[in-house]
Amino acid sequence: MIAAKGYAAIKAKDPLEPFKFDRREVGPHDVQIEILFSGVCHSDIHQARDEWGGAIFPLVPGHEIVGKVVKVGDHVTKFRVGDIAGVGVFVDSCRHCEYCKEGLEQYCNDSPVFTYSSYDKDGNITYGGYSNTLVTDEKYTLHVSEKLPLAGVAPLLCAGITTWSPIQNWQMGKGHKVGVVGLGGLGHMAVKFLVSKGAEVTVLSTSPSKKADAERLGAHHFLVTKDPDQMKAGERSLDFIINTVSAQHEYNDYLPLLRVNGTMVLVGIPPQEPSLGAVNLISKRRSIAGSMIGGIKETQEMLDYCAEHNIVSDVEVIRMDYINEAFERVLKSDVRYRFVIDMATL
Amino acid sequence: MIAAKGYAAIKAKDPLEPFKFDRREVGPHDVQIEILFSGVCHSDIHQARDEWGGAIFPLVPGHEIVGKVVKVGDHVTKFRVGDIAGVGVFVDSCRHCEYCKEGLEQYCNDSPVFTYSSYDKDGNITYGGYSNTLVTDEKYTLHVSEKLPLAGVAPLLCAGITTWSPIQNWQMGKGHKVGVVGLGGLGHMAVKFLVSKGAEVTVLSTSPSKKADAERLGAHHFLVTKDPDQMKAGERSLDFIINTVSAQHEYNDYLPLLRVNGTMVLVGIPPQEPSLGAVNLISKRRSIAGSMIGGIKETQEMLDYCAEHNIVSDVEVIRMDYINEAFERVLKSDVRYRFVIDMATL
Repeated sequence: MIAAKGYAAIKAKDPLEPFKFDRREVGPHDVQIEILFSGVCHSDIHQARDEWGGAIFPLVPGHEIVGKVVKVGDHVTKFRVGDIAGVGVFVDSCRHCEYCKEGLEQYCNDSPVFTYSSYDKDGNITYGGYSNTLVTDEKYTLHVSEKLPLAGVAPLLCAGITTWSPIQNWQMGKGHKVGVVGLGGLGHMAVKFLVSKGAEVTVLSTSPSKKADAERLGAHHFLVTKDPDQMKAGERSLDFIINTVSAQHEYNDYLPLLRVNGTMVLVGIPPQEPSLGAVNLISKRRSIAGSMIGGIKETQEMLDYCAEHNIVSDVEVIRMDYINEAFERVLKSDVRYRFVIDMATL
Repeated sequence: MIAAKGYAAIKAKDPLEPFKFDRREVGPHDVQIEILFSGVCHSDIHQARDEWGGAIFPLVPGHEIVGKVVKVGDHVTKFRVGDIAGVGVFVDSCRHCEYCKEGLEQYCNDSPVFTYSSYDKDGNITYGGYSNTLVTDEKYTLHVSEKLPLAGVAPLLCAGITTWSPIQNWQMGKGHKVGVVGLGGLGHMAVKFLVSKGAEVTVLSTSPSKKADAERLGAHHFLVTKDPDQMKAGERSLDFIINTVSAQHEYNDYLPLLRVNGTMVLVGIPPQEPSLGAVNLISKRRSIAGSMIGGIKETQEMLDYCAEHNIVSDVEVIRMDYINEAFERVLKSDVRYRFVIDMATL
């Protein structure tokens, strides 16, 4: 086994604290990664506090991982020692269902093996990226260009792919008017991608204070959702909405903004289930859809696109021992737009 | 003006009673239709009782109309005296917005002029098909084949096109597994269309008593939605669901039946807004959409398809003076599957 260290919640709701554990030996198809940066996703907090139920402790969070390959298994073909590699939300899946075969491993019929708070195929608990090292199957490991600032790459592995995947699936881009609800870790990536793809982007936010940032990110319009006049004026104007909000909100407030045949894609899950007025869909043939992270193939495509177009996440790099304060600040949305842990500080 | 007679609710919640009124003179682009059959749609009851608000009285219901052309305006080119013609849910629209130009008049930016309980462009109240005669613009009037039994054609103008349009828009057919929720006026048409197009059809119903009918209509499977074991076994099996139910129900009960990328299309509006669990959409990239009747072009295509494939609605033909009893029976779902008034009995 490989000795590893990290930060863990020993049991639900505990603050994170230093934790020692083992990683598996590097198997024939595995790579060992020295972790350089690990992004802090809101779901890390949900899981460390077991707010969704079923979390597995001790729990080492982290599924936005960038590092350097330090060892490769005998049959590894995709990576060499010294390569920069990324790992996202899952590290394995059944590999034989129709979705795994299609490159949609996130929708695997058996459920993917998640990067933490999951059991791998040997029955061991998976531990995430808030740690110094990681062993993963090369098939579930991504190539990262050295051209990009690596701290800003880490959040691409979850926040990035979560917004990239619906943009690709629904082919949003030039000629489309697209709204982004919520300018946070996910929302700011959605804006960057959409602007880069030539869409006309409207940021929808409860907070007028985000207008300057929205413009800096390239958004063309800004709509304060608490202003009924602005919401009325925006009716039937958008082809798509990417709704990144996990806080409580009403879908019915946003649906009238969609044109005929428009689609609102949900990537966040509010604590209570909002109600849905069928007439908001029926009267204009609108849709509400959901989308979850992305498959390995499209994650690689996104990372390659980001390298080509010089896109990374806006991040605030923190020390490992700042993590509990960082969690509190995430809960207050007091971060623009993602904390990333410099793992050298572990 | 043309003297007309029919049945109307004089004010909200009144029973329907005989009513005399005027139709406009036949203009250059108009046809006058002697109404032969008029279908009874659940929305006729909602409107006659002003349950949606905004109904206009006196209210002559009826938007599933089949009749014979008895007069044509000077510039009419599509119809000749003696032709069989149909009129559906709307009789005009703005004609210049992008949706009207695309043949999606039902989504007209100005709202279409509805066949009854609406104002036409001259400011007159529109009166529906529970009457002996109707004057309509030929552009909003459909050709009906004489080959088909005309009583069974009448419901195609609303129940038929309401289910046909989503089947066409989402291209449901051969190779797809499609669920139909609710075997009523709309649902039985959805089953007929889907079977005819080669889809593998599952009828979903709270009532096991509808199984024999579902099979008679050609459905391949029947799923009792009140049976948790059957619902569990059906999870992730369907590509599409056409949800025709207007009674109270939960969308979350049906969404797990959809596969990855599956879509549930709503064509009914329950009285209370159901809640929507985002996780049901996100976890399998599912969608909920809505669809409303259909445009003139696709309504004509549907009528032509029905003539070619010998498809009509299953109807119970009634006398005009039976209408108030018929309304009560519709409310109890005591009809298989559509009442149609024989207007010769007026």
